[in-house]
Parts: sequence; structure tokens; C-alpha cells
Amino acid sequence: MTKKPMSRRSLLGMIGTVAGASAMYNAMTELGFAQESSYAGPPKLGKAKPGASVLVLGSGLAGMVAAIEMRDAGYKVQVLEYQNRAGGRNWSLYGGDTYTELGGATQHVGFDPGHYLNPGPWRIPYHHAGILHYVKRLKVQMEPFVQVNYNAYVHSTFVNNGKPRRYREVQADFHGHVAELLAKSTKQSALDTAVSKQDQEILLTALKAWGALDKNYEYKKGRETSMRRGFVKDYGGGLDSLPVFSEPVGLSETLNSYLWRAINWSHEFEYQTPLFQPKGGMGMIGKAFGAELGSLIQYNAKVTDIRQDKTGVTVTYVDAAKGGAARTARADWCVCTIPASILSQIPMNVGGRMKAAINQIPYGGSVKSGLQFKRRFWEQDDGIYGGISFTNQPNALIGYPMFDYFSDGKGVLQASQASGPGGILMSAKSPEERIKDLLDYGENIHPGNYKKEFENGVSVAWHRVPWTLGCSGQWTEAGRERHYDNLCALDGRIVLAGEHASRLPTWQEGSVVSATDAILRLHAKAMTA
Amino acid sequence: MTKKPMSRRSLLGMIGTVAGASAMYNAMTELGFAQESSYAGPPKLGKAKPGASVLVLGSGLAGMVAAIEMRDAGYKVQVLEYQNRAGGRNWSLYGGDTYTELGGATQHVGFDPGHYLNPGPWRIPYHHAGILHYVKRLKVQMEPFVQVNYNAYVHSTFVNNGKPRRYREVQADFHGHVAELLAKSTKQSALDTAVSKQDQEILLTALKAWGALDKNYEYKKGRETSMRRGFVKDYGGGLDSLPVFSEPVGLSETLNSYLWRAINWSHEFEYQTPLFQPKGGMGMIGKAFGAELGSLIQYNAKVTDIRQDKTGVTVTYVDAAKGGAARTARADWCVCTIPASILSQIPMNVGGRMKAAINQIPYGGSVKSGLQFKRRFWEQDDGIYGGISFTNQPNALIGYPMFDYFSDGKGVLQASQASGPGGILMSAKSPEERIKDLLDYGENIHPGNYKKEFENGVSVAWHRVPWTLGCSGQWTEAGRERHYDNLCALDGRIVLAGEHASRLPTWQEGSVVSATDAILRLHAKAMTA
Repeated sequence: MTKKPMSRRSLLGMIGTVAGASAMYNAMTELGFAQESSYAGPPKLGKAKPGASVLVLGSGLAGMVAAIEMRDAGYKVQVLEYQNRAGGRNWSLYGGDTYTELGGATQHVGFDPGHYLNPGPWRIPYHHAGILHYVKRLKVQMEPFVQVNYNAYVHSTFVNNGKPRRYREVQADFHGHVAELLAKSTKQSALDTAVSKQDQEILLTALKAWGALDKNYEYKKGRETSMRRGFVKDYGGGLDSLPVFSEPVGLSETLNSYLWRAINWSHEFEYQTPLFQPKGGMGMIGKAFGAELGSLIQYNAKVTDIRQDKTGVTVTYVDAAKGGAARTARADWCVCTIPASILSQIPMNVGGRMKAAINQIPYGGSVKSGLQFKRRFWEQDDGIYGGISFTNQPNALIGYPMFDYFSDGKGVLQASQASGPGGILMSAKSPEERIKDLLDYGENIHPGNYKKEFENGVSVAWHRVPWTLGCSGQWTEAGRERHYDNLCALDGRIVLAGEHASRLPTWQEGSVVSATDAILRLHAKAMTA
Repeated sequence: MTKKPMSRRSLLGMIGTVAGASAMYNAMTELGFAQESSYAGPPKLGKAKPGASVLVLGSGLAGMVAAIEMRDAGYKVQVLEYQNRAGGRNWSLYGGDTYTELGGATQHVGFDPGHYLNPGPWRIPYHHAGILHYVKRLKVQMEPFVQVNYNAYVHSTFVNNGKPRRYREVQADFHGHVAELLAKSTKQSALDTAVSKQDQEILLTALKAWGALDKNYEYKKGRETSMRRGFVKDYGGGLDSLPVFSEPVGLSETLNSYLWRAINWSHEFEYQTPLFQPKGGMGMIGKAFGAELGSLIQYNAKVTDIRQDKTGVTVTYVDAAKGGAARTARADWCVCTIPASILSQIPMNVGGRMKAAINQIPYGGSVKSGLQFKRRFWEQDDGIYGGISFTNQPNALIGYPMFDYFSDGKGVLQASQASGPGGILMSAKSPEERIKDLLDYGENIHPGNYKKEFENGVSVAWHRVPWTLGCSGQWTEAGRERHYDNLCALDGRIVLAGEHASRLPTWQEGSVVSATDAILRLHAKAMTA
């Protein structure tokens, strides 16, 4: 018997081995040891069979995770990529870049050096341990993504005569009225059956502190409420130091504004602070992966056919840049990360179940746009340093740059993240028309500056992106119930991976954990084949 | 008549001039134009009288704001500073620094390069427009201060068998139970007199979304609540992708834990995100001010007497480093920013009212400590990237480094911010004893790592700091009512400034707006004298 006490981690491992995963998770809960992420570290593949090879289709995050890990395990790896760069939807647009969408419109990005738009993902939550593992491994520099800016705007064309409110006002008024109403119910004995008298006392204390209620448990204009929703004039120094309190918005107006919807977002697991972004743009991660894989990636390779037989997988592709005769690549195994929206159009000899699964995934659209302005008026005039303003207009939000705070010079705003009907509306228009509309929307939030300071812009409508035809797989519940396992199951020598083959769709983490799970299963099969 | 429409700012200026400040602030409120900060930009002093001079006592932020602005206006400026550096409480401790506290204990800071402790202020809210003006003017690089980390711990020795909970669990459970109780009250018609039926419908919708309630308006284990409080295992990818939900803590335990107190802090105006810190330590601001003022600051000048007469002010000082004979400096005017805790011990011929005001300001204590660890276990083992954990132990909190995220190597935690009884307890001990205690406190929050990975530390007890004897002026309401105006009013040729002469005590912004207000009044007097 060893004298060393068993670590919590070893204990859990033992419980998992002996009693199964369910018992382990129960034990974890008991021990207050939540692993949170489903990512348990990079896959421990062990050593590949000598000479074993794998073809990876697509150099997005899923493909590159598969490629790195299988290369490290000893597989001969070749990656075929349709574009001329690595990263896929992990992508930043910089000045000098050119982008041509379906429909033929070509945009030349005119941003000054140091500025960018992330047309795809733009934030990474702290608990997305999979992608953060590779961030650390590839030494990508990270900085905080400001999800919550209490000074940003919440705007509705139907509310406050179309003038935006500050996020802190919306949150404070919602909290305050909820606290006042519940305090009132408590004092009127409406909770007497549900809550003990002693707990009611604590509840009242908590509501007063949390809701900024006054001594009568009311949410009213005064020091306490201004310390939440902000002042007309804050406390000052010397003899010009008395404050001017702000006037809370009443209960009915608060409820009917529906602006309270904006404050819930930041409470959701995926949007809880801290979140991070790579310095220099999200695309820095894809670039770092690409540099790590080097010549293992063959760019401009447009896959036209995927065919497996008893001994391997043959993939036919053409040069997407130069054309010419079709070529083939062959390996023992294939990890296919091509988005289902594209893959459904490529001949591939897999079973009917996987085919049905591929064919039924709906892909969501989103329109992301970046506008460059001569001056950082949002900082200088509005006091908004990073973060997000929300609006009921089709553009949905304005994201402020989250680096080089307080600097002079120019800045690029993320001027839209339009999905749903707003996204469809915007996708139907030309990039020029979208940008014209965005200036109108922005002018309602930053009047006097948005049009005046505008310089140039770029707009990416994901339904028009040639290599995805949408931004991400947006499963229905029924579709997932029926098809998800069939999508993910190995079919002979082929396994699919990507955010669409995960239960974290849209998120980069979904791609990483999907690839991790897929190659563990593929490797296990390869070792016994 | 001009054709150009009047800008909102000009209109407000006109209202202010014609109808007074109160009318202006009413108009601002009407126009939805809150200036928020009391800072209206740097003081427009105009030109000093030829040859006019001013002595500034203290090179903290208040003194250096006064010095820069009066120098720019044409005054001959001399600053006398007790220490051998500029900044005052704007201060960072780096490896190689030495600090001797009252009582004689000397600490040699052993941090590795790139690490620091801010013994004084460590964050700047977005609306502290005064200090942010100088940050921009002096080109100090800023980065976000992570106030809210949903993955940080909230810890009480009385709760959960002394094991910490995550911030997100505490917030989610508090929100959830409040929402469920209010939904219950609403459905039981307890609000029928206060809220219209139509508004009740919206309220129920809002509570469900905000509180993560299920279809029966209950806060129960499931997808929705785990999407707030976190999972035992999150959704994943491929075939190992089903989640394990976490179990909410019940209403009574939630209330009686008092952990909900930790979530209110971030809603307060001064703690709302985004907040900022200078890259490299808060002391970078003081350094930048010091560099800007150069030889105008005389260091190691310990003021022993302040005497005004009909034509000027004479200040006697000794060399705090070398000793020797007393020397004097003389100027027409004096801005004195010496903390009241020290100033009350220096002879100064001002009136009884100002003296009484100086003598009655209580100074708060706080103990801040920095501990260096061999390994960033809070990131690697706990997934905590920046932010603050809270505890009921005397150390009150642990602040995690908010830069170089995901990096390898060492890190320095702010291991205490102890005020109140905890601060007094810690101040009474030697630095070594404090650090020993801190390792015990930290071990309860990061078991297995805190003691094992510890390398070295430094602890600053503000009641023992020789040049302030406390961290900041903590006025009582009665004291402020009776003495505040007397403290701030000009006394002959002398005006006081500093956080203690503001209604934003403790904050650096208080120093800036205090100095701004003080020199506007001093200059006005100097111009008519």
C-alpha cells in the first residue's frame, strides 16, 4: 500500500474505470469537481501502425486538429483544402484582401494596417478547453473579448423615441423592478407557503442589495439606483462635486420595451466572461495551425469525388485556381470535414444513413460586416471601449474594437451580425447596398458620426460564401434525434468531423471536440483493421 | 441668423449659461444626454499672470494634474515630493524593489521580471473620464481589467463544507430562485393590484428567459439551468457528446449561504465592465506623469512646515534621504495634496475650519499582498483566466493576473485586499506572518497548489505606509456634511486637493477631479488677486 494519498483526479479515473462514466460524473458532482468542458485533453492515440495513412479533407479547425494529432501519432497525413489558406471559417479579413461571393461580387478590403473583420467566429469562452489547448500549443497571443459593456447601447426603433439606452440602465431597471415586486410579494405574505419566515428576511435583505432598493424596498430615483443605472452627473471633486441622479424607467415601460432581452445573453454559458480573442484577428489561430502543418496541406484542391474500397479511400480533386486535369489522392483512411452543405453535393460512397444525415442539416446564414471610420467616435464621444451594442434593426449589433483602447486614429466596427429575417434581407442585397443600409442603421445609434466618419467597408453574407453556403449547421431537435449518430458513426474507412458533427454547433470548440472524438474512433478501428 | 443647426452640446451650453446648471441637467436628462462623469475635460485655465508661481505638495495624481495644468497655463511650478518616485498611491512593486513599512520591517520584492503587485488602486472604470484623459494624453497603454470571471470562486468557510463554488453557480441560482418566486407570485395573482394583466404576461416571459426557468416556471436541473450555472460535463463532439447537467442549489441554501453578496459588486457603477489597467502595472501612470514633469518635481523633500503670508507661501522641507539642514521653497500659491492623515501633523497656518476638516477625516486601512507562484495553476487546473475570487476569510479576495493569459511560467496573484476587521488583523502582523496566513487562506480555495507552488511574496498594510498611514479618506456622512466644504474652500493662498477632497474617495478619479476643481478656483483667485 502506498502512503501517498490518492489525488482527486486518480480517484475519479478509478471510479470511471470500475463503475462507468455515469458513476464517475455522480462522484464528480459529489466532490464539487466539474470538468465543465467535454474536452479531456488532446486525444491519446498511441502509435499508428507502420505506414498507416490518412487523408484529411478541409483545413478548417476540425481538419487541422485531426491532421496534427494523427501526424503526431505517426500517420502519413495529407490535407486537401479548397481555398488558398488554412483556417476555414476561422478567418480574418485585412486591408488588401479580396473576397468574391456567390453572385460574383468582388470586394477589395480597404482597411488600414492593424484593423480587421472576423467574418466568422470572433470570441472564445474560457471553458472551450479544446480550442484553448491548441491556442496554447501554437502560442497564439490572446486578449480579452469584452462581451459586456455597461456603457454600450441597447436600441429599439420602438422604444424611447428610437434613442438608444445604455446597457446599465436596462439591466438596473429590470433588476430593480423585479426586486421591488418580489419584495412586495414577500411583505404581503404571498410567499408564506413557499419560503420560511427566516428565509424571507434574508430574501428581503438580498433583494434590497441586489436591486438597489431604498429603505422601503422601492426602486426609486436616488443615490442607490444611480449607482447602478448611472448618473446624469456623477459625484465629483472639490466644491463642484454634488451628483445629479438619473430617473429610472417605470415598470411597464421597462417590460414593454423588451430591451431586457439584451441582458440575458451575457448570462449564457457560452457568453460568460472572460472570453478571449487572438491578438490581430481570429484568423491568427488558423494561420498558426497552417504554419504548423506546412506542406502537409495542399491548397486550391477542390474535392469532386470520395470513394472508399476495401483497402483505402481515393479522393479526386481539381486545382481550384488553375483548373486542369483531375488528380487523385489515396490513403488508408479519411477524415472528411467538408461542411455538409457542400459535402451533400459531392459523390461519396457511404451508406444511406450517413447520406441522409448529411443531406438534412440546415445551414444558418449570418451577415457580418466591417466598417472603417476615420475616428474612434464611439470611444471619444460615447465612452464605449469595446463590447457590443444591440439593436432591433436587421444588423442586430455593433461590435467595437477590443484592442488599442484610447488610441488615436481609425477603427473598424463589426457593423452587423445579422441572422434570421434580418440576415436574409441583407443577404439578398449587394455588398454596396448592405453597407449603405448599415450606415442608416448605425446613424440611429451613433447620430452625427456614423455617416460622417465612414471610410470603407466589407460585408460577408454567409449564405453566399462559396465554400460553405452558410455559417454553420443548425440542427433541428428532430433532425438530431434521428440523424446525429448516423452522421458521426464511422462508415467503413471514412469519418466526418466539424462543428456540424458536434453538439456545440457554430462554435469552434465544436470542431475541435468533434475531430478529437472522430480520430479516437478512427484510430481504434485502424489499429484493429 | 446662422443656418447651421445648433448642436446638442451648444444647446446645453446655452441652457447652462442662461438658466443655470440645474436647468441644464434637466435638459440633459430630457435629451437622453447624460455626461455621467463629473469631468468636463481638462480645466481651461487660460493664461497665468506673468511670473505667477505655485508650489505643489505631493506628486500623487492630484499634485501632478495640478502641476501639469498650471505649468501649461504659464505658472512657474515646483513640486515637492516626500518619496523618491512620482505617483503616490499610484504604485506598482516589481522584483528588485525594496519597501520599508512603519515598524521597520523591510521587504525585498522577489518577483520575476514582468510581474508586479499594485499595492494601491488596480482598476479604472470606463467612466472615470478624468484619469482616462491623462492616460490618453500621456500615451499609457491600457488593457482590460477582468472584473467578472464566471469561473472564479466564491468561497465561504461556512458554506458547502468550506469548498468554493463557481461565480456562475452563485449568480444562476440566485437569479433562478428570484425568478421562480416572482413567477409564482405573479401566477397566484399576488401582483394584480401592482401590475396589469398584460404586463404580467410580459413579466412571466422575461422571468423565464432571465432566470432559466422551465416550462412550468420552475428553476430545475436541466439544459436551461446548466446553460447558466455550468455543466458537470458540457455538450461535446461526435459520439461522446451528451451533456451531464449540474444540480442547482436549493432556495434556502442559496439564501443562507450569503454568497449572493459577491455578485452585486459587479453591478455597481464603479465596478461595471469594461474596466482597465495599464499594461505593466498601475504605476505606469504615475511614471508617465513623472516623466512629463521631469525636473519640476523635487524628490525626497519631506515637508515640515507650510506658512502663508500676504504675498505667498513658504514651505520648509528636509531631505528625506540624506537629512541635513532644512530648506525652503516659496511661491505665490500652494496646492497641497498631502494626505490629511499626514497633513494633520504638519504645522500650517490656515483657518480653524480647514484645520478641523483635516483633523477629522478617518483613513481606511487595507492590506494588499502579492504572491509569486511557480506555475499558473489557476489557469491550468482551475480554468480561471483573470478576474477575482471572493472569500469570507480575512484576505477577502484573490485577484488573478489579467495579462499574458495562457502563458507558461510563473504568475503573481493579488492574494489579499483586506479591509475592515480582516485588514486590522492582518496589519497587526509582520509581513512574514501575513504571508504565512495568506497561504492558509489560499489553500482553502486552491487546495494542493497554493502552498506547493508558492515562491515569494510581499505585503503592504496601508496603515503602516509611512507616507499615508492608511489607504484613503473614508468620510463619515456626518463628517462630510459638516466639514467637506471647509476642507475644499480656498484658505488664503492655499488650496487642498486629493481623493480626500472629493466625493469619489479612494478612486484615482477623485484625485483628478479634485485637483481640476481646486486649480480652477485657485487660478480664478490668482487672476483677480
